[in-house]
Amino acid sequence: MTDFFKDIPAIRYEGPDTGNEFAFRHYNPDEVVMGKTLKDHLRFACAYWHSFAWPGGDPFGGQTFERPWFGDTMDLAKLKADVAFDMFERLGVPYFCFHDADVRPEGDTFAESTKNLEEITDYFAEKMDATGVKLLWGTANLFSHRRFMAGAATNPDPEVFAYSAATIKSCMDATLKLGGENYVLWGGREGYETLLNTDMARERAQAGRMLQMVVDYKHKTGFAGTILIEPKPQEPTKHQYDYDVATVYGFLKDFGLEGEVKVNIEQGHAILAGHSFEHELALARALGIFGSIDMNRNDYQSGWDTDQFPNNVPEMALAYYEVLRAGGFDTGGTNFDAKLRRQSLDPADLILAHVGGMDACAAGLKAAAAMLEDGQLEAAREARYAGWSEDLGQKLLTSDLTEISDLVTAQGIDPQPRSGRQERLENLVNKYL
Amino acid sequence: MTDFFKDIPAIRYEGPDTGNEFAFRHYNPDEVVMGKTLKDHLRFACAYWHSFAWPGGDPFGGQTFERPWFGDTMDLAKLKADVAFDMFERLGVPYFCFHDADVRPEGDTFAESTKNLEEITDYFAEKMDATGVKLLWGTANLFSHRRFMAGAATNPDPEVFAYSAATIKSCMDATLKLGGENYVLWGGREGYETLLNTDMARERAQAGRMLQMVVDYKHKTGFAGTILIEPKPQEPTKHQYDYDVATVYGFLKDFGLEGEVKVNIEQGHAILAGHSFEHELALARALGIFGSIDMNRNDYQSGWDTDQFPNNVPEMALAYYEVLRAGGFDTGGTNFDAKLRRQSLDPADLILAHVGGMDACAAGLKAAAAMLEDGQLEAAREARYAGWSEDLGQKLLTSDLTEISDLVTAQGIDPQPRSGRQERLENLVNKYL
Amino acid sequence: MTDFFKDIPAIRYEGPDTGNEFAFRHYNPDEVVMGKTLKDHLRFACAYWHSFAWPGGDPFGGQTFERPWFGDTMDLAKLKADVAFDMFERLGVPYFCFHDADVRPEGDTFAESTKNLEEITDYFAEKMDATGVKLLWGTANLFSHRRFMAGAATNPDPEVFAYSAATIKSCMDATLKLGGENYVLWGGREGYETLLNTDMARERAQAGRMLQMVVDYKHKTGFAGTILIEPKPQEPTKHQYDYDVATVYGFLKDFGLEGEVKVNIEQGHAILAGHSFEHELALARALGIFGSIDMNRNDYQSGWDTDQFPNNVPEMALAYYEVLRAGGFDTGGTNFDAKLRRQSLDPADLILAHVGGMDACAAGLKAAAAMLEDGQLEAAREARYAGWSEDLGQKLLTSDLTEISDLVTAQGIDPQPRSGRQERLENLVNKYL
Amino acid sequence: MTDFFKDIPAIRYEGPDTGNEFAFRHYNPDEVVMGKTLKDHLRFACAYWHSFAWPGGDPFGGQTFERPWFGDTMDLAKLKADVAFDMFERLGVPYFCFHDADVRPEGDTFAESTKNLEEITDYFAEKMDATGVKLLWGTANLFSHRRFMAGAATNPDPEVFAYSAATIKSCMDATLKLGGENYVLWGGREGYETLLNTDMARERAQAGRMLQMVVDYKHKTGFAGTILIEPKPQEPTKHQYDYDVATVYGFLKDFGLEGEVKVNIEQGHAILAGHSFEHELALARALGIFGSIDMNRNDYQSGWDTDQFPNNVPEMALAYYEVLRAGGFDTGGTNFDAKLRRQSLDPADLILAHVGGMDACAAGLKAAAAMLEDGQLEAAREARYAGWSEDLGQKLLTSDLTEISDLVTAQGIDPQPRSGRQERLENLVNKYL
Repeated sequence: MTDFFKDIPAIRYEGPDTGNEFAFRHYNPDEVVMGKTLKDHLRFACAYWHSFAWPGGDPFGGQTFERPWFGDTMDLAKLKADVAFDMFERLGVPYFCFHDADVRPEGDTFAESTKNLEEITDYFAEKMDATGVKLLWGTANLFSHRRFMAGAATNPDPEVFAYSAATIKSCMDATLKLGGENYVLWGGREGYETLLNTDMARERAQAGRMLQMVVDYKHKTGFAGTILIEPKPQEPTKHQYDYDVATVYGFLKDFGLEGEVKVNIEQGHAILAGHSFEHELALARALGIFGSIDMNRNDYQSGWDTDQFPNNVPEMALAYYEVLRAGGFDTGGTNFDAKLRRQSLDPADLILAHVGGMDACAAGLKAAAAMLEDGQLEAAREARYAGWSEDLGQKLLTSDLTEISDLVTAQGIDPQPRSGRQERLENLVNKYL
Repeated sequence: MTDFFKDIPAIRYEGPDTGNEFAFRHYNPDEVVMGKTLKDHLRFACAYWHSFAWPGGDPFGGQTFERPWFGDTMDLAKLKADVAFDMFERLGVPYFCFHDADVRPEGDTFAESTKNLEEITDYFAEKMDATGVKLLWGTANLFSHRRFMAGAATNPDPEVFAYSAATIKSCMDATLKLGGENYVLWGGREGYETLLNTDMARERAQAGRMLQMVVDYKHKTGFAGTILIEPKPQEPTKHQYDYDVATVYGFLKDFGLEGEVKVNIEQGHAILAGHSFEHELALARALGIFGSIDMNRNDYQSGWDTDQFPNNVPEMALAYYEVLRAGGFDTGGTNFDAKLRRQSLDPADLILAHVGGMDACAAGLKAAAAMLEDGQLEAAREARYAGWSEDLGQKLLTSDLTEISDLVTAQGIDPQPRSGRQERLENLVNKYL
Repeated sequence: MTDFFKDIPAIRYEGPDTGNEFAFRHYNPDEVVMGKTLKDHLRFACAYWHSFAWPGGDPFGGQTFERPWFGDTMDLAKLKADVAFDMFERLGVPYFCFHDADVRPEGDTFAESTKNLEEITDYFAEKMDATGVKLLWGTANLFSHRRFMAGAATNPDPEVFAYSAATIKSCMDATLKLGGENYVLWGGREGYETLLNTDMARERAQAGRMLQMVVDYKHKTGFAGTILIEPKPQEPTKHQYDYDVATVYGFLKDFGLEGEVKVNIEQGHAILAGHSFEHELALARALGIFGSIDMNRNDYQSGWDTDQFPNNVPEMALAYYEVLRAGGFDTGGTNFDAKLRRQSLDPADLILAHVGGMDACAAGLKAAAAMLEDGQLEAAREARYAGWSEDLGQKLLTSDLTEISDLVTAQGIDPQPRSGRQERLENLVNKYL
Repeated sequence: MTDFFKDIPAIRYEGPDTGNEFAFRHYNPDEVVMGKTLKDHLRFACAYWHSFAWPGGDPFGGQTFERPWFGDTMDLAKLKADVAFDMFERLGVPYFCFHDADVRPEGDTFAESTKNLEEITDYFAEKMDATGVKLLWGTANLFSHRRFMAGAATNPDPEVFAYSAATIKSCMDATLKLGGENYVLWGGREGYETLLNTDMARERAQAGRMLQMVVDYKHKTGFAGTILIEPKPQEPTKHQYDYDVATVYGFLKDFGLEGEVKVNIEQGHAILAGHSFEHELALARALGIFGSIDMNRNDYQSGWDTDQFPNNVPEMALAYYEVLRAGGFDTGGTNFDAKLRRQSLDPADLILAHVGGMDACAAGLKAAAAMLEDGQLEAAREARYAGWSEDLGQKLLTSDLTEISDLVTAQGIDPQPRSGRQERLENLVNKYL
């Protein structure tokens, strides 16, 4: 155990009525819901970047956090890892996620950066072994360094494409070595600042080529995890090519990769794209590409990615309802892609933010499971489409426009609207909360 | 000529310095740019619905316009047509567009509505013959009547699907008869109000089935025009399935229709989806599905579709630049899907709104053509990607991740960022305006 | 009792576990919280316009609701009143609110409209007497008729100003006669569509003059209720002068009316102005102008006023927390300015939408009361500002810049940031939900 | 002259047809419009922070610019000043603006920071003397350092209030010494991240107290310039107290400072608050608090402050139209609060961004002047309100509700709507562009 969290106890489940803020009120990892423990349903992961690498800056101000591990040496990187795994254990979080840039010092050359990554990977392996904490996913940071300012896979400069490909390989290697269950691609700079200097068709083709290489490398190395794309509409770019789930689906179809790649959906990114979180989840399920989630909360009154810890249980119930309808997570999980507010300086803030988020997720999932087990909502949905199982519905599936037109005329079809019952269904949802 | 516009002259080109508000300052239909007249470049069309069917209501107030043709009889429908064609001629607009509901009285039955549509179609044919005005596209209004409140193709009730299919057939028949150059599908209610009562996978499959039938009917009837989908993200629904160009593309790929169907892109819908108009145009070009445009302007400070007449020439220059880069319109054109402000009560307002819009389009297109002919912008774009034609770029296209990683290490590749020169390119654009 | 709701029982409190959708799960009107019954805390009101006058139209479609009382006669107006009061009683809602245009047929002249209003006012008086239902507030609809298309008080045409003033007088008279506890002004058209034709300074002065006359008339007639302005940023106009609470405050200060007029704050309008509901409530409290609330819910992904029934309990807890901090309602109350989705056709939908909304409000208020009684949140807030009660804080209040600068230099003041503890406070809030 | 811009010529006016990108096409400083030179109309200023202090970072990536003056020593601060004044001269920009943090190294103590500011102030004075460049305004950066993370004037900690007051004094002293024509307050952290830990009434009172001290100090020191508040709705905070012009006005009225303080309006901030730039300008004029402008351009599709150089001439014409209607600038001017895109790495980018912006402003102002001199727009506006100069209009100003109601009834007033002519006026504007 490190000094950083020294006065903070390990977090245990104490039930809804506890007055102890360092305890779970809803997340009992061993509680069984729909035949599975909450731990196995939720598959929580902490995000290394927000919790351990982010200094608290924003566009109008610099660092607010003062962490003993901030700096660019391997020793500090290991101290950071010590604190991180200490937190994972105190929280009882079974997984973590990382980018290369979060965990190792940048080297003077690509080779040195890779060597650094390998060294910290070995260090992680020891700690994972000691703690039982596992890797949900790894990824490459291809957006922070100035070399990526105009994109990684979609950069006009082939040297950047090459550097990006090599970096991805090193991160896939690390993920494989650590037994990661997924590998994620978020294209933070794969987009444009201005159309005036951009060849979209070419950049899209480059992105497709890179993705194909990633899939090939997965198969070549025997990586058993899932390749995930994380959609986002914009920020930092004006436009990001992986705008939302529907856009990613079209991209995958175009390159014949819809059977190889799934999506990692983030609440905040859904909101920025003009969707609800549950919409993106339901659509991914409908398209067969649902993979994993980045759980956070965006401020509805702010136009950028606020990445706050989640706390609105009714919203989370709707999200987990879609996760459960999709069959729950396979290799995916619930990654807290959430950061402290920059005024939340204390070690206790970091622990309690996760405690609150985990509790909110657990409460949401339990409500979602109750809704699904009760079955009223699904029964109402089914009933609404019942006509499609009857004669007319079946006949329409094998008729053409002319036949249908004749049928409408002959039978004098004059459809009568029926209530969509939205408010009744909303009341029904509230019953489980 | 009708009485409605009786004191208004036919609109002629008089050049930039004219003081006559009833004259074009930029739109000289016979002016040749890049080897084609402005008339043939722009292919202007008036929208029947906004100009002749909309009464001026909004969610907080009713009718403001008092038009002699308002009412539900065939005689009034013909009076409306007389005034409409009078306007087309006065403006010298070569095309118009319509929905069934704009032009004929609703009948008591589907058969009667169809008969009414056929009668007005014949009346249109005479007027088109007499005036030389042509049909850019026809479409079916599957969103205004209460029977469509829960969708048309995607309705839970198969009777509505059938009624919609029959209605589409009748509108395709009318479009074919009138020599229409395109047939448009805008799915105003093809979406949902709440996920709670919606089966997205099923509704998406229904939409695909309907589109397949439309394409089949096109081929069966020998309709030579283009089938166009018009994307919109939302409004009136919370979510519309044809969200934006990228979403429509994924949908078309899914149903194997990307070679059969193109998009009709509207400025206001692009804005509502979080895109610029030029983005949607450039993307459609990159994906090979660019078809036609609905030209209007949305208020950037309003969150709904304001459908104003366009007037910002620099924005239009960027839009027509993408149209020209896509090779210009084939069967498509520039449809003014724009409505008067509801306080613009006078016949002169209707004429002058179009005059202003046409002038703004012409000015934009001429600037776009000058940019393209000058070539500096395209040269700068090409230069930015030049590395992809050189050795490294070519080699990357046939290497895998391991080979590229080896190459990066071996050559010590360390990419150096180069200026994206955005402001210089923006200055360059302003040179043509 | 009317036929309209004939199979629907009166709604009673049955507790959280009831399976009866026609019962309250949280709203027990007689339950005492912080020394007051829920009925007296919440002071629920139904909105006549949305529930009984709105036909279900939107900008892309017409009427969906078919109500037996739709039409323009006094008999139908009375039938509508019968059904309305039937609903108020079944729900046990103690108050209602109305516009003149909701309740009486429009006459051919102002005098006839006023006579109609007087007749229905008398009819209301009888029904109120019979049922015990009271009037929370009355208001004038100065936005739906085409005469108001360019504003009412701020219209360029003095005839419209005069007509508006006369209409307001008639509605204040009706409100007074019915013992209304407030009179509301919502300036739906008091704004502009384009700055190009607008004299803002003049229109603002006209609005001030009208408000002064309203206040004068209140005193002259002895009306004991509160005059309330309802802020909204836009829609139907591009810009509405009563943008938000802060804007209304500046307006009131300018005309010296900040002691005479308060605000009626609507959740949906707060959202459209870029604020949270609780922000607007807290600001009104801080400025001393908190009056009443219009309770609804706007869809965060839609850019217009969706006016849905509320259902997110955590959000409502934060709202009622501010209401309770402001001392609760005085003459104000909780008016459901919410409308059914246009697909919710059935009488049961109308009842159940209110049941769900009332339950959500009750649950929110109870959570808010628990938070306030517990006191931890307020204690944390106080502690954060504690320094202002100490020596330095007190000294700063009587020093000038030079003195403070000298003090900073002399004492070497170097402020150290302290955690804002946001996540901990959010966790604390969730404890009560 | 410094090496930084060594291959770049001084920028001269060469007229619209020049092919030289290092020349003005519209900004001829000596051109006289409405009796004043363009130089005196526009009163251009460069912003020190964006052009010389910003490293090119964004929330997802670090520094992209590599400037020889980056670092924390006084020598580098002077090198930065050398380059800055070199740029001012090459551009022929008559003014500049700065924050303390832009120009001097932060000291270990407040006293040392102040000493550093004084030293660089003296250095500036020499350069200003040598070049003729003047100071439009100075300001204090009370938002970047972590000590200000919870606000400056509105901080819960009185030590921060004191430190802020002392810092403001030092910046006002520097501004006075350099002959600055205004002093600006932008409250980047004067707002909140969460209402849960915020006492708005108290923070508002603190802000009022600080402003009063600033005004007192202005009078005490004989500073002849204008005190300006710069409104912004949010970012970096969730809510900023100086939300928009209307909010600032209410604040000033509350503290009796509406005659002492004016506003510095920024295009990007107007957009973020849901307004057009011209709205904020017109409103400030109507309220008598128009002061100065921060000229930039926000991306309409991004939800944060993009601070781009302006380039849309029609939009700028509407903005300068309001400036001219307000009588033009008094002590205010046109400050380019605009930053390069972070990919625009080259010295030439920095020069050309300003060249393009200055040209766009000049073109906009000339169009605005032509509109105003022509008079058609103002004549149309006047005509719309003509009724208020006639009998009825005059009578209404001295009547009460009862008298007006009697008059409406007696005269049978039935107002008839008249066209608002929006499209005609928009066409008219385009005539001057």
